[in-house]
Amino acid sequence: MPNISKKGMLMPESPIRKLVPYAENAKKRGVHVHHLNIGQPDIETPEVALNAVHNYGNKVIEYSHSAGMLSLREKLSEYYRSVNIDVTPDEIIVGAGASEALLFAFQSIMDPDDEVIIPEPFYANYNGFATNAGIKVVPIFSSIDTGFALPPIEEFEKNITSKTKAILVCNPNNPTGYLYSKEELETLRDIAKKYDLYLIADEVYREFTYDGKQHFSCMHLKGIENNVILIDSVSKRYSACGIRIGWIVSKNKELMATAMKFAQARLSPPSLGQIAAKAAVDTPDEYFDKVMNEYIARRNTIVEGINNIDDAYCPNPEGAFYVVASLPIDDSDKFCQWLLEEFSYENQTVMMAPASGFYSTPGRGKDEVRISYVLNVNDLRKSVKILDEALKVYPGRKK
Amino acid sequence: MPNISKKGMLMPESPIRKLVPYAENAKKRGVHVHHLNIGQPDIETPEVALNAVHNYGNKVIEYSHSAGMLSLREKLSEYYRSVNIDVTPDEIIVGAGASEALLFAFQSIMDPDDEVIIPEPFYANYNGFATNAGIKVVPIFSSIDTGFALPPIEEFEKNITSKTKAILVCNPNNPTGYLYSKEELETLRDIAKKYDLYLIADEVYREFTYDGKQHFSCMHLKGIENNVILIDSVSKRYSACGIRIGWIVSKNKELMATAMKFAQARLSPPSLGQIAAKAAVDTPDEYFDKVMNEYIARRNTIVEGINNIDDAYCPNPEGAFYVVASLPIDDSDKFCQWLLEEFSYENQTVMMAPASGFYSTPGRGKDEVRISYVLNVNDLRKSVKILDEALKVYPGRKK
Repeated sequence: MPNISKKGMLMPESPIRKLVPYAENAKKRGVHVHHLNIGQPDIETPEVALNAVHNYGNKVIEYSHSAGMLSLREKLSEYYRSVNIDVTPDEIIVGAGASEALLFAFQSIMDPDDEVIIPEPFYANYNGFATNAGIKVVPIFSSIDTGFALPPIEEFEKNITSKTKAILVCNPNNPTGYLYSKEELETLRDIAKKYDLYLIADEVYREFTYDGKQHFSCMHLKGIENNVILIDSVSKRYSACGIRIGWIVSKNKELMATAMKFAQARLSPPSLGQIAAKAAVDTPDEYFDKVMNEYIARRNTIVEGINNIDDAYCPNPEGAFYVVASLPIDDSDKFCQWLLEEFSYENQTVMMAPASGFYSTPGRGKDEVRISYVLNVNDLRKSVKILDEALKVYPGRKK
Repeated sequence: MPNISKKGMLMPESPIRKLVPYAENAKKRGVHVHHLNIGQPDIETPEVALNAVHNYGNKVIEYSHSAGMLSLREKLSEYYRSVNIDVTPDEIIVGAGASEALLFAFQSIMDPDDEVIIPEPFYANYNGFATNAGIKVVPIFSSIDTGFALPPIEEFEKNITSKTKAILVCNPNNPTGYLYSKEELETLRDIAKKYDLYLIADEVYREFTYDGKQHFSCMHLKGIENNVILIDSVSKRYSACGIRIGWIVSKNKELMATAMKFAQARLSPPSLGQIAAKAAVDTPDEYFDKVMNEYIARRNTIVEGINNIDDAYCPNPEGAFYVVASLPIDDSDKFCQWLLEEFSYENQTVMMAPASGFYSTPGRGKDEVRISYVLNVNDLRKSVKILDEALKVYPGRKK
């Protein structure tokens, strides 16, 4: 039997999915599992997007342009103008989700053994894309004590080597929910400019900002237009994760011409998803008003709820729909598994993502979990209660 | 301005797309361009697939399982049973087109600098996927004189090194239309077994076989189940290229577990496309009968038409919807460009793919073109006439 590749062996397993068999067993035992572990919102996809699918009028489902349908890219350009970002359709390449878009970016700017600096905790699949591209993630520690704010500039500078090609931030952040400020983005601009690095910003949660805070985009930065790469998507904004439509935006023509070669090799992004995405851009404001109110209520439920648990702590983030909370536990991997395998309260339990999977430094995040607040307020209240009860009896409880 | 990657610089441009600007200019001059250059059929997508899209019933377009919806994989398993191939849903991972499926396969079995042997001419995007994975394509010459039959076993053997990990064939073949026989597949099996190589068969045209010929699949080979990787897709079979649903099939559990890690990193294949694909499997036989008759008529039109042109030659392939023909010309790249830039007959011209792009050995295919017979018989007749007239006046004509 022939071997598999070294790269294949190195590819990380998803930190969330390894718990899936335990969740399935819990369900088999008749225990209801509250899923706080994934970024799949329960919010309905906007009607305009679903209608576009229902009314799909072509007789042949054809390839689109490799960069995505021009009409979609025009629509996205229109959207960006509405948030004060100047982007032409030529500065957009549509991919099969932000996943593919980010992979195109990695591959276009980095060769094997090159390095990308990412504040940790970070979205776990960045590890997969980095392994796929053969590059190295250099983590910079951001702490729950500052609410996961951007680490100081010195932390970046002391990690920059001749191999460093890019800094990547997710803003608002998955997994922490942290919303980077204008000043923090300007710090990143200064570093990127000084060392001539790419600045990649994953802004797929850009519309999810709370407490009256405005999102400051990497595309708003002046003077480093050729260094900036925006990764964006409809998945979260329009609760349409399954259509797999994301995109890369950059003013750097050489970079875009390079990304285009990767895009051409795989012919085209999904056509039906593009139809849905194009229509989704016209989603009425009321949809978002309702969604935002819902997420704020959910966040408040989770943050207040967790902070009311003895020895637990949760910052109050201003974006996305995640929090990273610290719990009085020995090991979040063990705890999350135990919740599914051995615990239930009123025949219910919760599934969360152990935060260890969001750190690339071994040992970090052991007393932290990521919670996605993608359930309604009642279920979130129940989930907090279950967590509270669980911590009272968990054998690995600290203090 | 920061650099782009070496890999990005090495990524090949599509040999077809480089002619696109010339075709656009021709259209601007009012010249009608017959597109024989791409594998986008004009055949309608089956109604059952379009209906499934129109009747999409979910309120949230969610991620699917990373390996693809179980119900789709069950349906595909059912399809394979109908063609006497035993495949379970667990032995299938769905990707964003055969493109992604093949990339998963490459990455799962080969590391940078490893080698894959491919008979040339071959589908040009294999070069892109190989560059993407950092691996080397080792071409073996198949000749128009044998109708592009499998090269002799010695040709494979003399190219096998310690770096060789796989042999890849496309069956029926893009670009040649050649349908490999049972005996040829058994030859490949013997080589794969002797040297413990993977045998990857791209069978996306598996249903397109003519003249009563049966397709013999790599999955029909006995005794090398752990070496065989099937790449398949709905794109061509159901004329639904835009849904981007392809898949990898293998009985090798270690390989599939590895491919699954690449699949998980990008979360899920397109959900809407999967709905269409699942429905498409139930397309009634009459659809295919009609489609097959249409393609046979088209192939006959092209093959007879070209063989009636002085000094031109076209084999009579038994599968897919492509032919590679030799023409009395100095350089097919120049000729195909000239057809768009400088020639028209009754205000029409043809766009074809220069065959040079399908060879990785420099200099080969200079007097050959790939023709996709994806237009109706009348347009194909006109196209042949235009080609005939063009060859009478082309300045680089030979003989």
